[in-house]
Amino acid sequence: MIQKLIEKIEKNSAPIVVGLDPMLNYIPEHVKANAFKEHGETLEGAAAAIFEYNKAIVDATYDLIPAVKPQIAMYEQFGIPGMIAYKKTVDYCKSKDLVVIGDVKRGDIGSTSAAYATAHLGKVKVGSNSFYAFDEDFATVNPYLGSDGIIPFIDVCKEENKGLFILVKTSNPSSGEFQDQLIDGKPLYELVGRKVAEWGEIHMGKDYSYIGAVVGATYPEMGKVLRDIMPKNYILVPGYGAQGGKGKDLVHFFNKDGLGAIINSSRGIIAAYKQEAYQSFGESCYADASRQAVLDMVSDIKSALVK
Amino acid sequence: MIQKLIEKIEKNSAPIVVGLDPMLNYIPEHVKANAFKEHGETLEGAAAAIFEYNKAIVDATYDLIPAVKPQIAMYEQFGIPGMIAYKKTVDYCKSKDLVVIGDVKRGDIGSTSAAYATAHLGKVKVGSNSFYAFDEDFATVNPYLGSDGIIPFIDVCKEENKGLFILVKTSNPSSGEFQDQLIDGKPLYELVGRKVAEWGEIHMGKDYSYIGAVVGATYPEMGKVLRDIMPKNYILVPGYGAQGGKGKDLVHFFNKDGLGAIINSSRGIIAAYKQEAYQSFGESCYADASRQAVLDMVSDIKSALVK
Repeated sequence: MIQKLIEKIEKNSAPIVVGLDPMLNYIPEHVKANAFKEHGETLEGAAAAIFEYNKAIVDATYDLIPAVKPQIAMYEQFGIPGMIAYKKTVDYCKSKDLVVIGDVKRGDIGSTSAAYATAHLGKVKVGSNSFYAFDEDFATVNPYLGSDGIIPFIDVCKEENKGLFILVKTSNPSSGEFQDQLIDGKPLYELVGRKVAEWGEIHMGKDYSYIGAVVGATYPEMGKVLRDIMPKNYILVPGYGAQGGKGKDLVHFFNKDGLGAIINSSRGIIAAYKQEAYQSFGESCYADASRQAVLDMVSDIKSALVK
Repeated sequence: MIQKLIEKIEKNSAPIVVGLDPMLNYIPEHVKANAFKEHGETLEGAAAAIFEYNKAIVDATYDLIPAVKPQIAMYEQFGIPGMIAYKKTVDYCKSKDLVVIGDVKRGDIGSTSAAYATAHLGKVKVGSNSFYAFDEDFATVNPYLGSDGIIPFIDVCKEENKGLFILVKTSNPSSGEFQDQLIDGKPLYELVGRKVAEWGEIHMGKDYSYIGAVVGATYPEMGKVLRDIMPKNYILVPGYGAQGGKGKDLVHFFNKDGLGAIINSSRGIIAAYKQEAYQSFGESCYADASRQAVLDMVSDIKSALVK
């Protein structure tokens, strides 16, 4: 799956991922009205609106992008109907041949981590049958519990040719409270980064590991250090756009081969029609605004990488 | 909700929580056979077996215990039907007046943490209506992302009179890889513990905060230190029984008032019938074996606390 991700990045010349993190207030009124007409102002109605909104954005962008990253929390808050919309979104994106990174940030220990890995990347046995539950291609994972939490995920990834992105340095302002604390003179995120490099060796693709890292665009200097610590690990970079990261901040997240990083934008793409730059599209053409925002993001990153 | 938890602990003289972490291989053959007869060897069949198994154990133990802790990963691996079984389990336990600790170990930042908090503890707005999604009483949360990840959970807890247990020192062998690293001479888990004490002040009950901590029974010496650092925070203690923690290890997790800790046992209770000590109950009376295991656990802890 890391090979597929890299091939699609190269084919589209677009090291980007679209974050499908739908909030009801991003969704145009006409999409909500249609869904509520059929299902009422219910969890089912919200879930239907979310799926239609996602589908239109995917239809308008799938030929330009290698991957999507649905944020499961945005679906989970709508309970069972929300989880069904999440699963439908994953399946729909896969039907469009997109790589799907489940932004689930799960993490536990032993058999519980194995169960999460099964839920999102593997298949579960029931009697003599087996079934995929959510079946994303990659999942994001929290490292706080150490190897006992990560290895069960890697075991499933090896069986299924799938991968992980492990949180190393997150994009938020308070990420330093724990992640930047110095241990023998080096910040915790570097120690985590070194473990990711080590874990990555367990499940290598051709040049890159199936095991990647999450490092926020908002910390470019730390990205530079982490790039060196984890030369064979793909870095998933959130925080571009709405969170303040800019194209020029991203240069150091890439390796000299022009690979090694994939930049996420969520709100900046899916709610583009709400921004001044794209308001001429109007609410009814929100998906076209998203397409234009993808094109602009790709060219922003390209021009930053050329310099 | 912390008051309800404390009242129920005192009423039952039982500072324990039963972990509802069903694995298919814990579930007696006759329960699975019934479920598969109706639903086939499908995700729905597994979910039906899980719910029936949980229900019988809850029916046999609810009068002895204050709380249950369903581990969502064990349900999530069965996809949508598994999530429905999770929700049914939460609802059933609440109908028996049990406090429900959702062991979900979620954690993200900003609006995404808020969405997780909404999913598990709050209510979501859809048009002019609002709905509870999973509606547990407490949730477990991962601290790696810092205050930006935790505060949105606390905001929802304040609205709903609900609470959290934040991972501080986990029970697994490799928990030390990051959690024990020294920062200015003190381990990371102490720094996290001090933050939990600080966050706890934001949402206080009478003597204890709604914001608690998770500290593994397998590290009693660290439990002692953390008890002092977090005097007003309840400690949820996993790792008793199957993971090797014993009654005598638990003494230091409690305050002098005899409160302040709640000890979890999962496999040791729900799969008691598989242990030598309870095999006389037989597979058909698995729920009675669970009841006996609860009684034995309560008396083990009581005798340890008296010494």
